[in-house]
Amino acid sequence: MNAEKIPDIIIGRLPVYLRALQRMSDSGLKTTSSQELGELVGISAAQIRKDISQFGEFGKQGTGYSIAYLLDKLRGILKVDRIWEVALIGVGDMGRALARYQGFTNRGFQIVMIFDNDKSKVGQKIDNFTVEDSEKMVERLKSAGIKIAMLTVPAQAAQSVADKLLQAGVKSILNYAPISLNVPNTVKVQYIDPSIHLQRMTYYL
Amino acid sequence: MNAEKIPDIIIGRLPVYLRALQRMSDSGLKTTSSQELGELVGISAAQIRKDISQFGEFGKQGTGYSIAYLLDKLRGILKVDRIWEVALIGVGDMGRALARYQGFTNRGFQIVMIFDNDKSKVGQKIDNFTVEDSEKMVERLKSAGIKIAMLTVPAQAAQSVADKLLQAGVKSILNYAPISLNVPNTVKVQYIDPSIHLQRMTYYL
Repeated sequence: MNAEKIPDIIIGRLPVYLRALQRMSDSGLKTTSSQELGELVGISAAQIRKDISQFGEFGKQGTGYSIAYLLDKLRGILKVDRIWEVALIGVGDMGRALARYQGFTNRGFQIVMIFDNDKSKVGQKIDNFTVEDSEKMVERLKSAGIKIAMLTVPAQAAQSVADKLLQAGVKSILNYAPISLNVPNTVKVQYIDPSIHLQRMTYYL
Repeated sequence: MNAEKIPDIIIGRLPVYLRALQRMSDSGLKTTSSQELGELVGISAAQIRKDISQFGEFGKQGTGYSIAYLLDKLRGILKVDRIWEVALIGVGDMGRALARYQGFTNRGFQIVMIFDNDKSKVGQKIDNFTVEDSEKMVERLKSAGIKIAMLTVPAQAAQSVADKLLQAGVKSILNYAPISLNVPNTVKVQYIDPSIHLQRMTYYL
């Protein structure tokens, strides 16, 4: 097994399996099958077996998967068997909503610092956070060794903030600004733009 | 050309092209090339030419694409040459942020009604909206002919709300709840779960 060679499309499905398995585990289930998991996530059982087999032998046909074991393995593969510290940049409505979002708990992430370039926002409290000045961002990220950032700044500011994130050593950006970012291919960007997601569906209406 | 046969993966890229072309147009550009567009969106020029050619002959090698013409065509293909009325269900932090989000303007969507099942929220104002009672949701959606909904309710409520949305005739759901929905294949669901997007990137760290 060479992890580097696993296609990105498979990696993309693993977090969905992980989320479903976590819910099964939370509801007290101990074992599952590719059929059952498939129905939960809307992916065929054959596809699930194929995806999971890329990483080794996790279950046997007929006996199913141990949920705890599979959870453990998937968390290890996705490297969310730890807590990643995350920086949030941009304190608009979306930034505030993310700062207060409870959905990162137990999924491998914790926001630890929040920045904005608007001096009237710097020093503001959002729950347990104090908004910090963007001017100090590069230094702060570097000294904390932050590798992951969420970008909730306006589109016109996104590229220049992203450039600073790279300078600070960030390797993964979750970009909420509605614009494609130019980054070297050693850096990963994921995009969340609700209009893009909606437009993917209107085609079928 | 048979629009029904265009692979979903191509449809998924068209909104990204549309967004980039819109930005080019906003900045006063009149024509572009697959190279230039490719650099903006991080997709190869060859892939872009191939994707666009699925829908007909939009440009000629060497002369490039008319941005206005391509915008017009892409909006037509994606059916965002109109304004779709959208319902928002769930008035938490994320629901409020979406209600106030300016990024739907000019992209084909307008939130027109907001629901919550919490009686203490019903009647509240969020900008120009008044939160309505979920109990009236099915009737309201039906009579307004709403086909698109955004779901920002807790995970444990998402499936039952989705079932009601289908009952009301909704065909496209943008689901912010961190759970996979069970829907018939005549209905499209897109998922926004920041933890899933982050987990897609940690694998590469």
